[in-house]
This record gives sequence, structure tokens and C-alpha cells, in this order.
Amino acid sequence: MASQNRLSQLRKDAITGRWVIFSPARAKRPSDFKSKAPATASDHRGRCPFCSGNEHMCASQIFRVPPDPSFNLKIRVIENLYLALDRKLKDADFDFDFGGGGGCGGDANVLRGFGFHDVVIETPDHSVHLRDLSPREVGDVILAYKKRIEQLLTFDSIKYVFKNHRAVARASLSHSHSQIIALPIVPSNVLARIECLREHFDRTGKCCLCEVPLNELLIDESAYFVSFVLFAASSPFEIWIVPRDHSLHFHKLDDNKAADLRGLLKLMLRKIFIQLNNPPFNFMIQTSPVHTFHVRTGFYSLVFANSTTANCCRGF
Amino acid sequence: MASQNRLSQLRKDAITGRWVIFSPARAKRPSDFKSKAPATASDHRGRCPFCSGNEHMCASQIFRVPPDPSFNLKIRVIENLYLALDRKLKDADFDFDFGGGGGCGGDANVLRGFGFHDVVIETPDHSVHLRDLSPREVGDVILAYKKRIEQLLTFDSIKYVFKNHRAVARASLSHSHSQIIALPIVPSNVLARIECLREHFDRTGKCCLCEVPLNELLIDESAYFVSFVLFAASSPFEIWIVPRDHSLHFHKLDDNKAADLRGLLKLMLRKIFIQLNNPPFNFMIQTSPVHTFHVRTGFYSLVFANSTTANCCRGF
Repeated sequence: MASQNRLSQLRKDAITGRWVIFSPARAKRPSDFKSKAPATASDHRGRCPFCSGNEHMCASQIFRVPPDPSFNLKIRVIENLYLALDRKLKDADFDFDFGGGGGCGGDANVLRGFGFHDVVIETPDHSVHLRDLSPREVGDVILAYKKRIEQLLTFDSIKYVFKNHRAVARASLSHSHSQIIALPIVPSNVLARIECLREHFDRTGKCCLCEVPLNELLIDESAYFVSFVLFAASSPFEIWIVPRDHSLHFHKLDDNKAADLRGLLKLMLRKIFIQLNNPPFNFMIQTSPVHTFHVRTGFYSLVFANSTTANCCRGF
Repeated sequence: MASQNRLSQLRKDAITGRWVIFSPARAKRPSDFKSKAPATASDHRGRCPFCSGNEHMCASQIFRVPPDPSFNLKIRVIENLYLALDRKLKDADFDFDFGGGGGCGGDANVLRGFGFHDVVIETPDHSVHLRDLSPREVGDVILAYKKRIEQLLTFDSIKYVFKNHRAVARASLSHSHSQIIALPIVPSNVLARIECLREHFDRTGKCCLCEVPLNELLIDESAYFVSFVLFAASSPFEIWIVPRDHSLHFHKLDDNKAADLRGLLKLMLRKIFIQLNNPPFNFMIQTSPVHTFHVRTGFYSLVFANSTTANCCRGF
């Protein structure tokens, strides 16, 4: 039982309907945010596993950008050493495991923790933030997200992939990176979002997103994308970048649109830094579940939200 | 338009289905957590509005415990100076306000911010935490929550009331207090919870809560209550105290059960402080919407959850 308890599980709570990743391994990860002293690149040279030269401190590399190792490294995509999910379980091992290890409500769903948990190291330089990269470098990062998401979706059991970049206070390492999580289930908040869009479409015949009053909420726009603040933002700011057309899946972004997106992404990162005074924030990519075909209402989105105001008095 | 923007609104986002309180007034509130220096009672004597002698810095008092002002003050229930919601709107003024001031999706629901936002100052002493109170004093705090919730539910337009105590890092003032929020809507997460319970009952004929495997998840119990850790906890700890019977509404707690509850509540607060090394946390009371009669599955709960791990990679 003790050793079994060390394995990751996906647990669905019967009372709340929420899924959580139950991951004992994640509790062991280091944190360089315990120290309050301002960190410099040199402080981290010896101990940050994401810095150049410390690759031996990381789990396996999945790919690098550029692929040719004779060129200077820009981006690395690696496995997470402190796995929330276990990629070694084969698709065939993946099964519902009702009640194993205890359930809440008797039939709480428990899945073996099959899935992927990767890290995109967005720059080789510890002190460089995503906002500091050139538009071309931001574009390379977008394409690295896309490539890894595309790879993950080739696994039959994977139903949903999302990525998150947690800036400043909440990351366990301050070197700029994103996590990409691939799940064998569709999270309940994603299902709720899809249901909202579908319900609106069925009732009005219109796409909810196409009706956002951009005259009031628009921040900026490009040829293929708009960025706006959410009307009912759940934190002091919540900014979405969405494609103008009904693109369901981020991994289907073509090079032309990626080049268009990079400028808008960099601008939002700079605005958050300068105009919002560098708050801690999450930068997520929310995309559609694999098997979503309701093309007239779905879309993927790049979402920025303050990460310190999980205020139960505000959004519910 | 500028003055209209200063009023609170309840906004329902058409994309996510979430309600938020949009409250410009809340942005003005002070914070004594900006300073990192350890605070002492004397530091706050002159400037903490919740300390004895500083009542003139607060909004109106609603009641005090004990009621007789010739006895030493224990607890004060006051209006929040930085209102998230506006109690001055009469029930008759309360109305849906479609699209006023901009909606998301064209028909986003916008309600004038009618509701109540109160503060329970749980002790007159700035440096005393809820966990430090005697069981009898904890019992008095429970009865103060109950009394105020009972009062708020007499308003026809109020559909849901909840309270939250935010310990340490997230409160804007460190003096021990709870906020009680009374809303003219039922939040979507509450509706989702009720739907989960009802769906389980319809499918199995059993109450989800009655089936929690207490042999694995129980922390402690009393004559009328059990406390357990949630099987699929959304933070490193998530502790629920629930009544053994199907009590829907916290405000119907009788004196006998309140006396029983106080010991268990104090014990959980002490355990969080000692065994979990004093993490920041939210202590909420989740109760049922006013018009809930599905007595075989509903219940109220006292919930403790870590307030720093709003980790989108974990609970979804």
C-alpha cells in the first residue's frame, strides 16, 4: 500500500465533480523562491537545472531548437523530473481503477496517472524573461509549444493538452519555462466552457466569441488575432488572445499565423510588465479537446491571469 | 459613464459561465501585508480598524457579542468599508441589466451589485488567531456567523450566503476576521456541486457524503460532525467538517450542535497550524442555496483549503 501510494493518480471527486492530479513526486521538487534575495544569473549557474551546462540535472530531452546541436541552443523541451503524470504507462495499461486506494462517495473515479508532463525551457539564459525575447524568438517559442502539443496528441489515450507558464511568485524555478500537461480526461472546467458556448449557439445561432464587444474590451489586434480583457474577469486582469476565425486547436496554427501571433503575444507580455507593474501571472494556452468538431463556436485561446488572487469572494 | 463605472456589478461571463463581483471600490482597500516586518499588536494599535478603540475607522456596526456594551467586547459584526456589493439598493431596485456597460457575448448577464458584504471581527486582540481562542470563544464566533447568515437570509432577493476567513498571506488586514457575502444569485460552482450530489443520488440511491470512506480519510469526529480530508483535494490539504445528518443550512445549527462543533473546529485549526506548519489558508462555510430541499443529499460544510496553490495544473 505504501509503495502504491507513491504513484500518481487522476482522482475525480464525487462531491465537486473536479479532477485533480494526485502526485506524491511533485512534493519533492526544489524551489528557489524560498530565498527573498534578488537572484542573478550567476547565483543560479551552478544549481538551476534549466541553465546551459546543467542538462545532467534534468530528465530526458525531447527536442531542442534549433535541432542541429552545432548551433547555439535557444529552446529545450524536456521531461519534467518531478512528474505529475507517468508517461511510462503504455496506452494499454490505461484503465479506470474504481475505488482503488479509497474513493470519496464509493465510486469516485480513480485513473492511474497516465499522461505527460513536459517542460519547455524558453530561453537558455536564466535572467531573460519571455517578454525580453525578440519577436522572432517569441515565435520560436510558440512553434515549440505547437510541436510538442502536436506530438502529444498522437497518443490515442490523450484527450486534452494545455500549457502554462507561471511568472515570478508561483514557479518553483524562476528560469523562464512552461509546463505542458497531456491528460487522458477532459477537465470539468473545459467541459463547462464548451457547454456554455454550445448553449449560447443553440439559443441564439451566434458564436459567443464573435459577439465580444471589442469596442469596449479590445486591447490590441493583428491580422489573425484579437486580444481583449474578459468582461467578467476572474482576477484584476484577465487577458485573452484568440484567433479571429473559429480555430479549435492551437496545434493547427500555421507558420503564417504564428508569425502574426508573436508580435501580439510579446506586446501583451510587455503591457503586463509595464502597465500592470509586473504582477505574478499565469500564461496558459487553452485549446479544445481532441475530439471537438463544433467548429462554429469553439476556439483556442492564450490566457493571461493574475496568479495571486484566487479569491473565492470574487469569481465563482 | 465614468461615474457608472464606479458601481459594483455582478457579471456573468458568457464564455466561462462564471459569475464575478466587479467592484471598483475594493481596489482602494489598504493592506498591511505589503510590509514584510513581523507585526505586533502595538504596531497596529493606531492604524488597524479592527482593533478596540478604532471603531471610528470602520463602517457601521451590525451587532456585537456580548450585546450589552457594559461587558467586554468579544466579537463585532460590521459592514465592510470597501464594499464588494451594495446593500443600499433595495430589493425592488434589484434587476437584471442586460448589456449595460458592455457584455461579453452580447447577452452577458449584468446585475447591479446588490448584496451584502460584512465583516466578522473574531477577536478584539490584533495578535490573537482564531486557533488561539478557547473552545467557548470559538463557539461564540460560530454563533456570530450563524446569526448574521440568518439575518441576511431574511432578504427576499438573497439566494446564497457564504463566509470566508483568509489566514495570513491573503488577508488585506491581519487582524482575525471573516467576510460574509450574501448574493442575489447562486454561484456556478455551488450549482455544479449540487448537481453532482443529485446525479449520484439519482444513479445510486445513496448520498455521496454518507459513502466517504472514513476508515481512510477521517481526521477526527464528534457527536454530530466528522472532519476528513477530501479524497480528491484541490490543494495539498483540503479538510471538510460536515454534519453527520443531512443538514442543508448552516444557519439552522442549534446550540447543542454548535457546542459540539466548536471543539472540532478548534482542533482542525490547531492541526493546520502545527502539523501543516502554519500555511496560509481559507476557512470557508459552504452552505446550501436558500431554496434547496433535496434533503437526502445536501449538506453544509466547513472547508479549509490552502490559499497559495491555485495551481491550474492540479485541480480542474
